[in-house]
Amino acid sequence: MSDDDSDGSVGLVETQTARLFSAEKPLALASGATVGPVDVAYETYGTLAPDRSNVIYICHALTGDAHAAGWHEGDRRPGWWDNLIGPGRPLDTDRFFIVSSNILGGCRGTTGPGSTNPATGEAYGMEFPLLDMADFVTVHRALLAHLGIPHLLIALGGSLGGMQVLEWSLTYPHDMSHAVIIAASSRLTAQNIAFSAVARRAITDDPNFAGGRYAAEGTNPDVGLSIARMMAHITYMSEDALTAKFGRNAQIEGADPGFGIDFAVESYLDHQGQVFLERFDALSYLYLSRVMDYFDPFSRPDPLARVVADPVRYLLLSFDTDWRFSTAHTLRILAHVERAGLPVTFRELRSPYGHDSFLLVDPAYHATLRAFVDRAGEVR
Amino acid sequence: MSDDDSDGSVGLVETQTARLFSAEKPLALASGATVGPVDVAYETYGTLAPDRSNVIYICHALTGDAHAAGWHEGDRRPGWWDNLIGPGRPLDTDRFFIVSSNILGGCRGTTGPGSTNPATGEAYGMEFPLLDMADFVTVHRALLAHLGIPHLLIALGGSLGGMQVLEWSLTYPHDMSHAVIIAASSRLTAQNIAFSAVARRAITDDPNFAGGRYAAEGTNPDVGLSIARMMAHITYMSEDALTAKFGRNAQIEGADPGFGIDFAVESYLDHQGQVFLERFDALSYLYLSRVMDYFDPFSRPDPLARVVADPVRYLLLSFDTDWRFSTAHTLRILAHVERAGLPVTFRELRSPYGHDSFLLVDPAYHATLRAFVDRAGEVR
Repeated sequence: MSDDDSDGSVGLVETQTARLFSAEKPLALASGATVGPVDVAYETYGTLAPDRSNVIYICHALTGDAHAAGWHEGDRRPGWWDNLIGPGRPLDTDRFFIVSSNILGGCRGTTGPGSTNPATGEAYGMEFPLLDMADFVTVHRALLAHLGIPHLLIALGGSLGGMQVLEWSLTYPHDMSHAVIIAASSRLTAQNIAFSAVARRAITDDPNFAGGRYAAEGTNPDVGLSIARMMAHITYMSEDALTAKFGRNAQIEGADPGFGIDFAVESYLDHQGQVFLERFDALSYLYLSRVMDYFDPFSRPDPLARVVADPVRYLLLSFDTDWRFSTAHTLRILAHVERAGLPVTFRELRSPYGHDSFLLVDPAYHATLRAFVDRAGEVR
Repeated sequence: MSDDDSDGSVGLVETQTARLFSAEKPLALASGATVGPVDVAYETYGTLAPDRSNVIYICHALTGDAHAAGWHEGDRRPGWWDNLIGPGRPLDTDRFFIVSSNILGGCRGTTGPGSTNPATGEAYGMEFPLLDMADFVTVHRALLAHLGIPHLLIALGGSLGGMQVLEWSLTYPHDMSHAVIIAASSRLTAQNIAFSAVARRAITDDPNFAGGRYAAEGTNPDVGLSIARMMAHITYMSEDALTAKFGRNAQIEGADPGFGIDFAVESYLDHQGQVFLERFDALSYLYLSRVMDYFDPFSRPDPLARVVADPVRYLLLSFDTDWRFSTAHTLRILAHVERAGLPVTFRELRSPYGHDSFLLVDPAYHATLRAFVDRAGEVR
């Protein structure tokens, strides 16, 4: 994949951190538990319009972070959605003010199970309370209040990010005019849960997980976390994409067979597992993936009542080779939204790359986003 | 799934063991290495005809064993293909003599990496030589020689078993009149290899694997082996079958959420992982799965020359919801066999159950097998 052919990068950026909740005034979770303090890492790109009407909020996927675009000092690669965000890009920073934050429970600057529990002075570990999709939204809204942003032109996210946008649009539709939900789900299948369950078991059964006290014990469940990532990574790619990229190629032509890295695809997975250890925390993996398992907003009574009263315009996108969250997941969201009479555009995009397509440059995908965002910008 | 509606079980059976190769006259492997002694566990069902013309040879899948049909003393369930084998069943023991053996490298009575290395007096561990699909065939042939069986009416197997049958038919077509290859592959895809690679990594990265010396050290890589099994098991079932069986059902209705077994599908996977530990060996998993990765018989020069000179009649079956070895795998075998002008029947069966369908009772599946086997029996 080449970079987007459009203009430019947002250049050097820095992650900010805001303390949105304190120990004295903690965050109240949907479960009734509280957490405080809560710090949130975020980045912004572009310029807030004087009337504050040009804001796009980005929600990241399971293992994403606030660094969606541009470059940090020393970065080898730009932010994870850099191909989409920048001057002239579909999320055009010449026109829009873009906010991207690390999710509650994460491990990239926002408070999560690896943060220090003020009650003990040690990392929370499994003492961190269970989270709900609604809690992510609560924290996103607190960040917006902190930034003095009363309204979003667009809330936008892929995979778990799209699930946050769905939740947000259903519970606080007044916050936004448009919602873009990409490669997401309103309800995981048994197979989706099964893959996440095995990933979590790899982590929790690793002796170095130590019941979640690994930070205090100076260990890390590297084996379990890398196994979890390798397995999940297979589900993020289509079978054809793996075939096209690696086929049955040997890692070293003519090498003797064994139980190491014989095939190129094994080397790729190994690499994915290893680099993941440098940037992600095992407990965050547990907490965030579990939120996805339990998410099922349309099972609530009259789930669309608020958004019907205060309509949001939806864009729903899926990818034809995505077998992690197939188009059937998006069609379920579409059915609910259409039945409620809400304005919605749905498109199944053709892409060979599976679930990860939402992170990649695809001309039809980017053109669809660009058209929707442009129109949102014009009617704002 | 109910049992097959046809008649009966073969009743009580016992696994036999034959020493087919000794330390002095060891088995010569395709790699040039040798192993000896080699013991092979096998069972037979039915009666060998005086002219020895009624033999069907069963090849098992990755984690199967010789106990394909009937009951051992104390069994809670019959052999793994009992629904197919018995008086009146598609592999009718009133007419056919059926031989089923545990594969070389296995852990259910046949010599494998868990067997004692006569050179050290300890388990082979990783000193066991790497295997090739051809080695399985060599041992099957030795067993037939031991049993005084000069020729097979049918060689038949599913998944890895079907791969053995393919190999056997290509290299020693004179051994058989018919070959039945079910839910198999002539060449794993990158995704197939990827899933097996992660399963192996879960095993080899388990500290209790101890470089394969776990038997000598009195440990067992239970965590890695159960993770491997749980992950693989997801790939053996279709997404729809998992949904139909478990959906998003809670394991205990109304229980508090957590990181344990909240969903019924998690309980099922946990059970699959646990019971697997009682019957399977981690090193066998490595050795046998690696043979599958490397199998690619049609990449050899003129791979069908022998079978064209000595035609075998093929039955190739796939299941429409099998995403482990999709119908595309069977179609590749079909293309080679058809291009060579060999007699072949192919059928894609409809079944909701995915790869595991080959082990289950499906009327169309069993009827297809029965018809092919009956015709083979008539023309013998």
